[in-house]
Formats: sequence, structure tokens, C-alpha cells
Amino acid sequence: MKQLEQKILEEGIVLNENVLKVDSFLNHQVDPQLMFSMGQAFAAFFEGKGITKVITLESSGIAPAVMTALQMNVPLLFARKRKSLTLKDDLYTEKIYSFTKQEESEVTVSRKFLEAKDRVLIIDDFLANGDAALGLARIAEQAGASVAGIGIVIEKAFQPGRNKLIELGYLVHSLARVASLTGGKVTFAPDLSGADSSN
Amino acid sequence: MKQLEQKILEEGIVLNENVLKVDSFLNHQVDPQLMFSMGQAFAAFFEGKGITKVITLESSGIAPAVMTALQMNVPLLFARKRKSLTLKDDLYTEKIYSFTKQEESEVTVSRKFLEAKDRVLIIDDFLANGDAALGLARIAEQAGASVAGIGIVIEKAFQPGRNKLIELGYLVHSLARVASLTGGKVTFAPDLSGADSSN
Repeated sequence: MKQLEQKILEEGIVLNENVLKVDSFLNHQVDPQLMFSMGQAFAAFFEGKGITKVITLESSGIAPAVMTALQMNVPLLFARKRKSLTLKDDLYTEKIYSFTKQEESEVTVSRKFLEAKDRVLIIDDFLANGDAALGLARIAEQAGASVAGIGIVIEKAFQPGRNKLIELGYLVHSLARVASLTGGKVTFAPDLSGADSSN
Repeated sequence: MKQLEQKILEEGIVLNENVLKVDSFLNHQVDPQLMFSMGQAFAAFFEGKGITKVITLESSGIAPAVMTALQMNVPLLFARKRKSLTLKDDLYTEKIYSFTKQEESEVTVSRKFLEAKDRVLIIDDFLANGDAALGLARIAEQAGASVAGIGIVIEKAFQPGRNKLIELGYLVHSLARVASLTGGKVTFAPDLSGADSSN
């Protein structure tokens, strides 16, 4: 998605060879028009896959995921990273290791919002080692639901996440694929989807 | 906002006299079309207030807030509840007590995304004691920014939040005002804004 690559080049901050900071438009400050365009791009790519629900992980996944769900006219479900007073029983739970935060957290989804007949689209802001996406996939599979696809805003193509997900048979689509952050510079990897008309 | 009141009547679960659970459409599963309509309602109410930025608190505020920011064509900024590896320096910080979680958390906003010239609209999912909205207002004011308004999805009108905010001079607009949860039943308080054309 050229609009996203352009934004990354303009505003992304390369902290080191592994970390790209995009907190001016994605995961702290959020550009809502860009999120809307991302939602259109994901909806276009995953059209016809029979998706009944979009799933993401709080908090950075919510903005792109709600726009995707809006375009697809299905509910969004965001997994929570810990339990709260009003949300404690009957949960699907998985442990997810966060590359960015370098810590493990428990993510939970209420059982009543996932059914065996659901076909879910997982949306997340980053794909690095694939742990968040895999955790959400395992949660869907705990419910007997099928994972129709995984949509990623920014894939770090130099990390093993995509291959791990592909080998497990998941359909993965990333809006931007970062090939390298070496030398403080962002370079992009080719888009892998002929179907992404926005690219 | 009649559409929201109807949704609360249909899907809201009264846990006790103080707690209304709306996790089927707002703070776990999310109805994106309803969020879009809420964004329209907030944008209509706060039109002409010179708003330059929408601010909310992760995670439940993000979906309605990003739709509001979309309609107003301004950025969204979501305050984080704790520090992460890629977001640690130069923060505005306030402590906020969560009525729902019955715990205090530290919320942070990066200094670089708030300026003295900003006029912010605070959006939150619930108004109970007003602590979250006040914490966000104090963060805006730390930056020298002005608070142009506070938009609430569901106000618990039997709790003191609204009066506290009004007494401090803030403009408050709630899309639904719950008068009581007594007897397991939701009753609504009158809309207080002549300007809310959706109601």
C-alpha cells in the first residue's frame, strides 16, 4: 500500500535494526484517514473469504481493525491483555510474548463471542516473530472457529513471522513489508499479493 | 442517541446497581457501524469548536474516538496505561483511578503530540466518577492545550462525574445517559443537549 509506505518513510523513526517507531500515525497518535484506507485495503484483499468477525489485540490493533470491520460489515472483537472486573468468566486464554515490550502477557477473549461457525480475520499492527497473530489464531481455534486470514499493517520481513504463519497454512497479507532497518533507513520488500489493487 | 439507547436495552447486561456490561458492542466485541454513527454524533455536536485533536484512553475509547477523529478530520491520540519499550521518554503522566477495575493506573501521552495551540476533544466510553476524563484533561492542560469538550458514550447519570466536570467548566456531551440500573433494569435520563440532532 503505497500511501502507508510513504507515511512510514516520512514519519517512521528507526530506533535500531529491529525497531521501527510509528507512534505518530499508528500506535499512539493515529491517522484516522489512513486507518480508513487500510480498512478498505484489507476488506478488498479478503473479500469473498466468508469472514464473519475481525479479531485483534488491544490496543494498537483496534484502530485499523475497526475500520476493516466497518468495511466488511462484521463485528470486531479485541482480545484483552488482562482480566478486568466486568470481564472475567468463560474466557479463551493464550500467552503471547511481545517482541516490542519483551514480556509475556496473557490475552483473553470471552467465549460467548466466538463460535465454531465463525471465520475470523486476524488484524494486527506489526508482524515480527508472529507470536501475537499465532496467539489469536490459537484462541479462534480453541473456539472451533476457522482462521480465514491474517492482515498485518507493517510486516518486518527480515523476521521469521511470515514464514512461520505461512508454514502453518495461514493466508497472510501485509500492507507494508519492511525488508530492512539497517543504517537507520527503511527499505521495503516487494508486495506478495497480486490481489492488492492499492499497491 | 436513540440507536445507542436501543442497543443498550437489547444487549446491555446489568451486573449490579453500578455496573452495566456492554461488551457485546462497545468494549470487547465492537459494532463498527454503531461506532461510525457515534463518531458522526460527536462530530456534529462539537462542530465549530476548533478541535485539532481527539484524545482517548486505551483500549475501550479507541473505537468510538477513531471514528470521531475520522469525521472531524483530525488526528486521534490515545493515552497509554503504562510504558512500553518504544514509548518511554518525554511523557505527560497522570494517575487515574478506574471505577470498573478498582485500581489506579498511570496514563501517559508523548509530549511531542500535544502543543499549547491544540484544542482537544476528550472521548471516553463511560463517565462514572469522571476520573478518566479529568486525567486526560489534566494531561492536555500540562501541555498548555485547551479542552474544547468531553464526549462520553455512556454516562452513568447517577454518579457524580458529569457534575464534577461541569463545575470545572468543561463542556460535556453524552450519547446515552443512564439514570438508574436499579432492579436489573436500565432507565435513561433526558438528553441535555438541544444540539444533538440524532436524539
